[in-house]
Amino acid sequence: MGAVKTKRMPRAVREQQMLDAAVRTFGRRGYMAASMDEIAELAGVSKPLVYLYLNSKESLFTACIRREARALTEAVRTGVRPDLPADRQLWDGLQAFFAHTAEHPDGWSVLHLQARTHGDPFAAEVRAMREEIVAFVTELIVVAAREAHSDPDLPEREVAGLAEALVGAAESLAAWTNATPGATARQSASTLMNFAWAGLSNLMDGRPWSPPVDEVS
Amino acid sequence: MGAVKTKRMPRAVREQQMLDAAVRTFGRRGYMAASMDEIAELAGVSKPLVYLYLNSKESLFTACIRREARALTEAVRTGVRPDLPADRQLWDGLQAFFAHTAEHPDGWSVLHLQARTHGDPFAAEVRAMREEIVAFVTELIVVAAREAHSDPDLPEREVAGLAEALVGAAESLAAWTNATPGATARQSASTLMNFAWAGLSNLMDGRPWSPPVDEVS
Repeated sequence: MGAVKTKRMPRAVREQQMLDAAVRTFGRRGYMAASMDEIAELAGVSKPLVYLYLNSKESLFTACIRREARALTEAVRTGVRPDLPADRQLWDGLQAFFAHTAEHPDGWSVLHLQARTHGDPFAAEVRAMREEIVAFVTELIVVAAREAHSDPDLPEREVAGLAEALVGAAESLAAWTNATPGATARQSASTLMNFAWAGLSNLMDGRPWSPPVDEVS
Repeated sequence: MGAVKTKRMPRAVREQQMLDAAVRTFGRRGYMAASMDEIAELAGVSKPLVYLYLNSKESLFTACIRREARALTEAVRTGVRPDLPADRQLWDGLQAFFAHTAEHPDGWSVLHLQARTHGDPFAAEVRAMREEIVAFVTELIVVAAREAHSDPDLPEREVAGLAEALVGAAESLAAWTNATPGATARQSASTLMNFAWAGLSNLMDGRPWSPPVDEVS
């Protein structure tokens, strides 16, 4: 399963071109409607070559999910510095997340929509990525609670639920951002940061969360 | 398309039994893997009768989506009293939402997972339901902002983003609640209310949103 790897550069390059074409086609047409003919044509290669490199439509789709999931988690991880306060980590993570999903709308469509609903093994791939992101957010909330109290009083189940809620909010808002003309990644990151950190009540009272002043925006 | 309707009671009853069996099968197996044989057997009727009443697998699935979507939006609408303050409306709406999705896990799986990823017309059915819920939440936020300020200063796009985030958080948390042993609808409604209304910052500081004291819990 997954991408066939060799040391020869031209093959690796062509394989990436095939994956680029596949992500674009799967993301826009959906897994079922996407055709291998279209993917091969978009990649500028013959259909037999796609099968030679990626074996089947199933393994090509799995390779797409893996590549896009890895790229997204790496983007978020790279965006966050673990030595900073929890709210700054969350803000940086959200900015990285929305910037990446806005720059890769087809990859996000593959992960958020296509991969989740054509059964395993596809759903299992994206579930693993999602669990990694939920674990990261859970840890962030635990650390923030520890910073605020010497003895954190948020029960474990409450923290798990909060992390699920926050990740679901980010997923929903990313899909909305990509579908809404004029909506920007930074604006959506800011909306969600305000929502998650300050809550609606504070927003109503004109007390939003403020981004760090040292930041270049 | 859609359910065939007649005035004869036995037919209506049998049709509901077929839909019950179909929601259960589609929700657990997924749209593609669900078989009409299994649905007929579970409903205690012959397969030709299912086809006679509901025409095809596609229109049976559409009828399931419509029925479950209507039931969910009605449950939320019935749970909310528009004359109450915005935070109370949100709390009541969340409780109704989580109670309904917990009581109807297969229906929720059909709406949240299955219906969204097998293309139109299925996706369009659930999109219409989701837009209705987002519109309800948007209105709630606008009303709350108006209550807090005479001249609301939350821009329209910000409100739309907040509503998307809140609905996405609820969807994610409902799926998690149904998949997590011991998690309860009321607990998840409370977690999300706290998250949405008070924000993480207030939660860390031990200042959660409090449910109304007059309420029977």
